[in-house]
Amino acid sequence: MIHTTRLLGIDPGLRFTGWGVLDVSGNHLKHVADGVIATDATQSVPERLRCLHESLTALIEEYQPAEAAVEETYVNRNGSSTLKLGYARGIALLAPALAGLNVAEYGAMSVKRAVAGTGAATKEQVEMMVRRILPGAVVKRADASDALAVAICHAHHRASQQRVATGRRSA
Amino acid sequence: MIHTTRLLGIDPGLRFTGWGVLDVSGNHLKHVADGVIATDATQSVPERLRCLHESLTALIEEYQPAEAAVEETYVNRNGSSTLKLGYARGIALLAPALAGLNVAEYGAMSVKRAVAGTGAATKEQVEMMVRRILPGAVVKRADASDALAVAICHAHHRASQQRVATGRRSA
Repeated sequence: MIHTTRLLGIDPGLRFTGWGVLDVSGNHLKHVADGVIATDATQSVPERLRCLHESLTALIEEYQPAEAAVEETYVNRNGSSTLKLGYARGIALLAPALAGLNVAEYGAMSVKRAVAGTGAATKEQVEMMVRRILPGAVVKRADASDALAVAICHAHHRASQQRVATGRRSA
Repeated sequence: MIHTTRLLGIDPGLRFTGWGVLDVSGNHLKHVADGVIATDATQSVPERLRCLHESLTALIEEYQPAEAAVEETYVNRNGSSTLKLGYARGIALLAPALAGLNVAEYGAMSVKRAVAGTGAATKEQVEMMVRRILPGAVVKRADASDALAVAICHAHHRASQQRVATGRRSA
């Protein structure tokens, strides 16, 4: 009997955070759900982080994933934008950790390579490949597609490396 | 009768997060407690964020502050350092927001000006002034001194502006 493991992928951002859930059984991947958490830009940053945290916590409660993977986005813009992305990533790493899940992190290049075969893939190529790999997926926004892509990336890594990607990193 | 309001100041960082609690009664400030939350650099980032979040949540539970203030540190270093600071600041903004507290944010210049009279004050000057303003304070580390400084800054702003500094910001 093949064991099924449920994975949660998160592509964090202060304005929009994409999320995607899939089930892995051996080499087979099955789409479960995806969506986008949008925060209200007219609210204070602490309120927006609270909204993001509570939404992610509710998703984890609802779908009960066994592991999580978060996209390690890089920005070359100004420090203020990077700091804001950092807030959202901090929350995206915290919510699964509080639920006792292992959290893996993957750079954008690794995600593109896992999904589209090349780190140079465009956003459209990634989205097309996500739909091809997960036939049932109705991807409403690019952020949800990216979240499914990071979950697919994690599925590949955990299959080939058996627990290398447990998010152990130092800073 | 003068009402007493308890304030929590936080100077966030992934390695060390300073915190300080003080009571405001009219123009009088009284030191309550201060300290530093250190995370284990050998642990994964999600685990360290969890430790930071749980420590801040426990502090809020113990001291029951009515309002919180967080230092808006700027870094001119590389994007990776800024992102990590962002994680810690995200958690520092989230924990009081989850507890229903208003969270104000102050830039380093405002904090220095409020405590030492000039935005060009050195770290040592800020620490000396914090000890002078709060005679009972035993400040163990500079991070705790900075956290008390941001709480003092918030005390001044809320006294002079009556609720301007409620952390309303957009991004």
